[in-house]
Amino acid sequence: MARTRRIGQFELIARYFAPLARCFKGAGGLESDNAFLPADPKRDLVVKTDTIVSGVHFLADEKPEFVAAKALRVCLSDLAAGGATPFTYQLSLALSKGWKESWVAGFARGLATDQRRYGILLCGGDTVLSPGPLIITITAFGRVAHGRGLTRAGARAGDQLWVSGTIGDGALGLLAAHGLLDSPALERRFRRPQPRTTLGPRLVGVASATADVSDGLLADAGHIGEASRLGVVIERERVPLSAAARRALSAAPKRWANVLGGGDDYELVIAVPPRKQNALLAAARAAGVRVTQIGRFTRGRGVQLTLAGQPMRTPRKGYVHF
Amino acid sequence: MARTRRIGQFELIARYFAPLARCFKGAGGLESDNAFLPADPKRDLVVKTDTIVSGVHFLADEKPEFVAAKALRVCLSDLAAGGATPFTYQLSLALSKGWKESWVAGFARGLATDQRRYGILLCGGDTVLSPGPLIITITAFGRVAHGRGLTRAGARAGDQLWVSGTIGDGALGLLAAHGLLDSPALERRFRRPQPRTTLGPRLVGVASATADVSDGLLADAGHIGEASRLGVVIERERVPLSAAARRALSAAPKRWANVLGGGDDYELVIAVPPRKQNALLAAARAAGVRVTQIGRFTRGRGVQLTLAGQPMRTPRKGYVHF
Repeated sequence: MARTRRIGQFELIARYFAPLARCFKGAGGLESDNAFLPADPKRDLVVKTDTIVSGVHFLADEKPEFVAAKALRVCLSDLAAGGATPFTYQLSLALSKGWKESWVAGFARGLATDQRRYGILLCGGDTVLSPGPLIITITAFGRVAHGRGLTRAGARAGDQLWVSGTIGDGALGLLAAHGLLDSPALERRFRRPQPRTTLGPRLVGVASATADVSDGLLADAGHIGEASRLGVVIERERVPLSAAARRALSAAPKRWANVLGGGDDYELVIAVPPRKQNALLAAARAAGVRVTQIGRFTRGRGVQLTLAGQPMRTPRKGYVHF
Repeated sequence: MARTRRIGQFELIARYFAPLARCFKGAGGLESDNAFLPADPKRDLVVKTDTIVSGVHFLADEKPEFVAAKALRVCLSDLAAGGATPFTYQLSLALSKGWKESWVAGFARGLATDQRRYGILLCGGDTVLSPGPLIITITAFGRVAHGRGLTRAGARAGDQLWVSGTIGDGALGLLAAHGLLDSPALERRFRRPQPRTTLGPRLVGVASATADVSDGLLADAGHIGEASRLGVVIERERVPLSAAARRALSAAPKRWANVLGGGDDYELVIAVPPRKQNALLAAARAAGVRVTQIGRFTRGRGVQLTLAGQPMRTPRKGYVHF
């Protein structure tokens, strides 16, 4: 290597894997959360793969039911961001050498619970043994009306920026899980993400672009900005917070960096043309999900955080995979 | 656990994961190589996930181009067994901590070569870092006429048992790769499996059941027998061998255990009703692939190996995943 021995995940994908997907229209240059496969004249199949590693993406001593929920829900969250209704998934399990059957039983129970909750069924996969840590890869499948799937690209200058639910609970919950913060509510939120599967499909025809908050609000709103070639302004005082997050922030305001820069919220970031605002509110009402406008898309590039109209320094740009 | 602490891969899937797929018709109870997703009124989507682990499923010092070919081709082989024509795939890469960009570049080159060879394109995936070994999961997608996809179930008593190509080169090639046998030709065969993508789709309407030889001829023919609730008779003297395999066997006849019990051939095992024999030969000719009848399906259960009409003891039943 001429410059550095290592490159980051996004650069790696852009340099080596995006060229392999260049001619596949539905792959969106691998910059999209989902792949869209033309399935029939009326519907596209939406496909998303996520891999989680024990000790990296979830705590090594996490309950197997929670690991199952996390593995599935991170994919369902992406499908929701794509406007898709999930229906099936494939599961690959690389079990570490010391695996216990009781662990697998709990994991399967967790999957069964979520199958009922989200109306999905397992359709295949693979199981192998590995000398390394437990690794779970799920490829989830959803459906969306042909050509109507939502991606990060498509926002226009002047579009409003909305988010679902509350922001920061995932990252603060990780602190709680590590014992750095005392909040069972936040910890639960980190351990049991709630993908917005009821809202996502209702955003088709309403949102101009979407992403889920997996890397952090600033990063994921920024992903929409980059894919849509726009700047993003986020007004910090409008970012919706849970009561538990508000308490955690008043105890230590520096945790704003976690709230805005940390990941694992699995809420949706939504770009909405002003004329569609009422349609968005109706969709959110029908889905039973709260939505909050927190900013807007502008000409230019980059994410600008403001407080009372004044620009602020943005904390770190989101979860860096490697 | 009451009985034993550990169960094997097949039992694990049957006990914990098959119930999760019970209501998904196209999943075939997870006993099939592929999942069949209804896509449009005319075609089904055929989906297959395979995970390979460095040091387990391929040599840890294997060239990245070969690792890419192996990862893709094991999936394409299953799609071929399903009668499907491949068109896209998702890739999950769990890179080990010491990964080098040059390795990824070689891996991507290998994928690009096979994309051209098999007419497929990458459509998405995930890349993560793991403290364990490199693990690659590919979910490959093919298409087959609606309801016509081939599975292991469907053979009938009296059907002929055929195989494509030659058998045993994969397992003998593994010995060669480990330096236990001097044969560059066999080693190449192990390192570069040739999935029967041209033959598989031509078997639709011809074969009554199919499988690919990934676990070993006896095991994979046995999988058809089990899924079709039949016995299988294999006449050892009819098993087609490459010149290199014949040499390896005459030097050490005990290697018959590898030939019949070892995996990684990625040939097709094909059940064919006698009245379809000519159609099979025509399909093989059109595909440019040699096929050989090696036995038949019978009432009863189990795999019976014969030599000159006399029953033989069968060697170990095929690659045991764990």
